[in-house]
Amino acid sequence: MTAEDGTFDTPGHLSVTTGADAHRGDLFSRDCPTRQLLDRIGGKWVSMAVKVLGDEYPGEVRFAELKRRMPGISQKMLAQTLRSLERDTLVARRVEATTPPRVHYRLTDLGYSLTEPIAALRDWAELHMAQIDAANAG
Amino acid sequence: MTAEDGTFDTPGHLSVTTGADAHRGDLFSRDCPTRQLLDRIGGKWVSMAVKVLGDEYPGEVRFAELKRRMPGISQKMLAQTLRSLERDTLVARRVEATTPPRVHYRLTDLGYSLTEPIAALRDWAELHMAQIDAANAG
Repeated sequence: MTAEDGTFDTPGHLSVTTGADAHRGDLFSRDCPTRQLLDRIGGKWVSMAVKVLGDEYPGEVRFAELKRRMPGISQKMLAQTLRSLERDTLVARRVEATTPPRVHYRLTDLGYSLTEPIAALRDWAELHMAQIDAANAG
Repeated sequence: MTAEDGTFDTPGHLSVTTGADAHRGDLFSRDCPTRQLLDRIGGKWVSMAVKVLGDEYPGEVRFAELKRRMPGISQKMLAQTLRSLERDTLVARRVEATTPPRVHYRLTDLGYSLTEPIAALRDWAELHMAQIDAANAG
């Protein structure tokens, strides 16, 4: 699916030896960074940002346009969300030297590989929202 | 509805009438409970609890056993996680009237339907953890 990172479809060489296996995370391992990663990507804002950017992939979306397409997000929360995605190399940022500067965002190939699992979780939540919301109210 | 509303993936039968549409959540709708639901189910502890309970489905797992199989979780955090899952009717709780009482948990059918999308996100995180962790460190 993605050529950039070369690991998406689990090439055989990663599972040949236990040494190579060590590169795969384990959510159930107490100190594994997979845990923090999952907390970073599991929330609503990342889900929405990845969806909006994924719809334009590999094209870019400007900050103001992202904000417009994520109703309810604050300037600060959007900046934090994008910065976190950028640190995780899921999003690339480009500053256009206009006055004022225009800032453009796009998903990297790695970020695009996240659109499918995130869509699965979002679909599940949207599909079952009414049932669960009724249970919570009851 | 437009793609921007986040509803373009809606299966055809759900979008035949507005009445049916109303039952489906929309993450991109400012006040839709789908947002809170996604934040409740997207994190590491829910991911782990659903995995452990899913492995035993439709069987039950006792609190102490759950805690043992989720390394690093505190008593309090596990209790909160299970209570939230129970409120969302994803987990069912049964108290056995022993001394002291034994508390058993199992996934409901609805909870079991969450195992697949959660596994997809966990797999993605475990697969890409090393690459992302290295980028964060660099």
